[in-house]
Amino acid sequence: MVEMSRRAVMAGGAGLALNPAAGGPAAAAGDAVQPAPEVTRILARYVVEAQYDELPADVRKEGVRTLFNYVGVAVGGSHHETIDIAVSALSPFAGRPQAGLFGRRERFDIMNAAFINGVSSHIFDYDDTHLKTIIHPGGPVISAILAFAEMKPVSGKDFLNALILGVETECRIGNSVYPNHYDVGWHITGTTGVFGAAAAAGRLMGLTEQQMVWALGLAASQPVGLRESFGSMNKSFNPGRAAGNGLFAAILASKGFTSSDRMIEAKRGWANTISTKQDWSEITDGLGQRYETLLNTYKPFACGIVLHPAIDAAIQLRNENQIAPSDVKRIELNVNPLVLELTGKRTPQTGLQGKFSVYHAVAVALIEGAGGEKQFSDRAVLDPAVVDLRAKVAPRVDPGVKPEQVDLTIELNDGRVLSKHIEHAIGSLERPMSDSDLEHKFVDLADGILPAERTAKLMQLCWSVESLGSAGEIAQAGAKPAA
Amino acid sequence: MVEMSRRAVMAGGAGLALNPAAGGPAAAAGDAVQPAPEVTRILARYVVEAQYDELPADVRKEGVRTLFNYVGVAVGGSHHETIDIAVSALSPFAGRPQAGLFGRRERFDIMNAAFINGVSSHIFDYDDTHLKTIIHPGGPVISAILAFAEMKPVSGKDFLNALILGVETECRIGNSVYPNHYDVGWHITGTTGVFGAAAAAGRLMGLTEQQMVWALGLAASQPVGLRESFGSMNKSFNPGRAAGNGLFAAILASKGFTSSDRMIEAKRGWANTISTKQDWSEITDGLGQRYETLLNTYKPFACGIVLHPAIDAAIQLRNENQIAPSDVKRIELNVNPLVLELTGKRTPQTGLQGKFSVYHAVAVALIEGAGGEKQFSDRAVLDPAVVDLRAKVAPRVDPGVKPEQVDLTIELNDGRVLSKHIEHAIGSLERPMSDSDLEHKFVDLADGILPAERTAKLMQLCWSVESLGSAGEIAQAGAKPAA
Repeated sequence: MVEMSRRAVMAGGAGLALNPAAGGPAAAAGDAVQPAPEVTRILARYVVEAQYDELPADVRKEGVRTLFNYVGVAVGGSHHETIDIAVSALSPFAGRPQAGLFGRRERFDIMNAAFINGVSSHIFDYDDTHLKTIIHPGGPVISAILAFAEMKPVSGKDFLNALILGVETECRIGNSVYPNHYDVGWHITGTTGVFGAAAAAGRLMGLTEQQMVWALGLAASQPVGLRESFGSMNKSFNPGRAAGNGLFAAILASKGFTSSDRMIEAKRGWANTISTKQDWSEITDGLGQRYETLLNTYKPFACGIVLHPAIDAAIQLRNENQIAPSDVKRIELNVNPLVLELTGKRTPQTGLQGKFSVYHAVAVALIEGAGGEKQFSDRAVLDPAVVDLRAKVAPRVDPGVKPEQVDLTIELNDGRVLSKHIEHAIGSLERPMSDSDLEHKFVDLADGILPAERTAKLMQLCWSVESLGSAGEIAQAGAKPAA
Repeated sequence: MVEMSRRAVMAGGAGLALNPAAGGPAAAAGDAVQPAPEVTRILARYVVEAQYDELPADVRKEGVRTLFNYVGVAVGGSHHETIDIAVSALSPFAGRPQAGLFGRRERFDIMNAAFINGVSSHIFDYDDTHLKTIIHPGGPVISAILAFAEMKPVSGKDFLNALILGVETECRIGNSVYPNHYDVGWHITGTTGVFGAAAAAGRLMGLTEQQMVWALGLAASQPVGLRESFGSMNKSFNPGRAAGNGLFAAILASKGFTSSDRMIEAKRGWANTISTKQDWSEITDGLGQRYETLLNTYKPFACGIVLHPAIDAAIQLRNENQIAPSDVKRIELNVNPLVLELTGKRTPQTGLQGKFSVYHAVAVALIEGAGGEKQFSDRAVLDPAVVDLRAKVAPRVDPGVKPEQVDLTIELNDGRVLSKHIEHAIGSLERPMSDSDLEHKFVDLADGILPAERTAKLMQLCWSVESLGSAGEIAQAGAKPAA
């Protein structure tokens, strides 16, 4: 290792000699090049060539749902303190007002706008999830292309095609390095999201195959995010910066700024440098046939999915039985051990702490019939009725219960006993949220930020994206009109 | 590993439960936290507290030389195709004209200006080198703070203090992970440079200790650069993007955008995620006493240092003996094996290939008495006199010759034999370039870009930075006046 570094120091210059793929003198020095297909080029070719008309109907539909869910969460996060700070910090430096910010009046250049909207979309950890990799695909990709589409009109069909190609790019690259890459500490949404953003934006810019290769190379040079940042504003920073970095890469490549042709797969390229696992077939196999987009899921509840079965059960029992909190004597849950390990907080004091309390989650779901961001607010956590009821929640660990399952039993004061078994919680791949569920989530998130009629129009634009002459209409409808 | 990922998926939410340092539920799950000092905070405190008056004179002097060399190479690279492309690509998106670009008339917002100037400084691989880590310290740090200093006046003393603190930050962090981090594939100038840029810029912005902790955390979230990009424009991209990313981090932190308090040292923080080696003492020991800045070196020749002893010997023999190319019968060199391994190209056809040819380097040095960028141009490589002479260069590998040594013998047609032994080439720590050497390099680089009197003024401003009321004067003098 030391000798390798020494050679690197000595070579200096433009460093060509260090690049075995370039066939320079170093190739003779015994650095074996790992056999890998031309992953970067194969992926680039797919991204520049794939046509909207070739997309299966179910893939298009899931792409539209990904867009719909993204817009809802981005509007929802748009007035969080994190966004106020970022907007205030960047305003003196932003370029021309090319693109809007969800839920706000300010307009920034497309890279800064993509950053802000990407942060907004992740604020509540309520965005979409590609469960195979834990990537949140929408934030990086859609933040980048929606900003671009507002500056330069693109049809809704082209927009949706680019969105899906971006999601395919980031999730396939994520598959190739997951789980090692995530486990060591990378926030995989930020590290792969930059590829997705570059691919999708580059497609809308009309990059050639070679330019797309370079865009992916410049994206590979800008991974974003470490898991240590979880719990701070830096977590939401990551998908936002991935969106901005991806745009930056595509913009430079579009003018001929070069990179290596093998940045993903080379010996000292992205995957070998950033992960101990590389599965090239995950990136290159079945392009245009197997779609990761179909594996995207949407959260019905604004907390970790470990709590979703319990919340789902509580809401169903409430709705089926018109339970009043004062009727409840005791709530018993049989849960997977992860539930208490991750969400065992008995007496949360803040909304954020409430997301780590199965006691709170079940109590507030039974009272309010929901598990949205409002149910994980400081208000909800300190509500006396919720506090009273959570004392009656009695979870019991049962290794026989799978993480996606729960058995919930409510004993009422009148002696009745109500039970609900959940096999797969709402929001899972097996029981996806319906379009109507997504609409309720959207309306709840936009409440207090956009007027109701504007929210309705925005939702309609998202659903009908494929018929829009200009996808930028969605960004315009999602922002507040300038004063 | 898989189980770890599963827990991560399930926790979701704001991810607090995944952060052992936060004392969340996951801490109980058996994830041992590695014992590490509060590296991020210790470093942040040093960066916000260290005073210019406490800097030893030799450290200040080396900081000035670092600045001087940086400005020269940044001017020199400013009209390369790489910069033309980057300026053209980013012009539509840049913000207010807050800062100039070396050697050019355009003005950008400070983040885009820092990017362009950072790229310029690395174009010829002719910038400074911290040999312990192969970091090129000047590019990321000075590009960031000079752009800032043009927007908001800062004294030359404060500027130099920030510059040195930035260099200390990036090189110390580099020491802690080198060589493993570099060997696996990271371009260490880009991955550590973002810390240096954030620290230096944050210092000039007057960040509090806590804000500096966050700035370093946001910097940790944005490493730049892979070695696979060497040989493409993407290599110069890396120090430029590191400069821009560091500014981005400091700007956000200055308004209260938070990160983790332990982003460098936490279990899933920067050093553990990005390297298999972590030596915290390299970061925290001897702050304000041991200065990495003193270890910075400057290249006298525009090629890898493996060639420097041979070029040095050729120039010395030429100057001592007034050798005409036609007098030369044969040139023999005893060289370390690395020389032929890395620079064994016999018949280079382009200037860039010339950097990997010991034959060309010795021939052109003997004819032109220099090894600057002009000697590694297409013109020089195709010059018939150089082509003739390089055929007479006969290197011989000798494992007994150290990489920093050479024995060069010239046999003349009249029978005379001239010899020169180099123990340490010019530009090494043992035989540093003199201020006068740096001036010659600077003038050579600026030739054809800035008028001679402007170059002279610019050099004078750099040498006298400590007495400047506003360090931004340097940036103004280094740009071309707007038309």
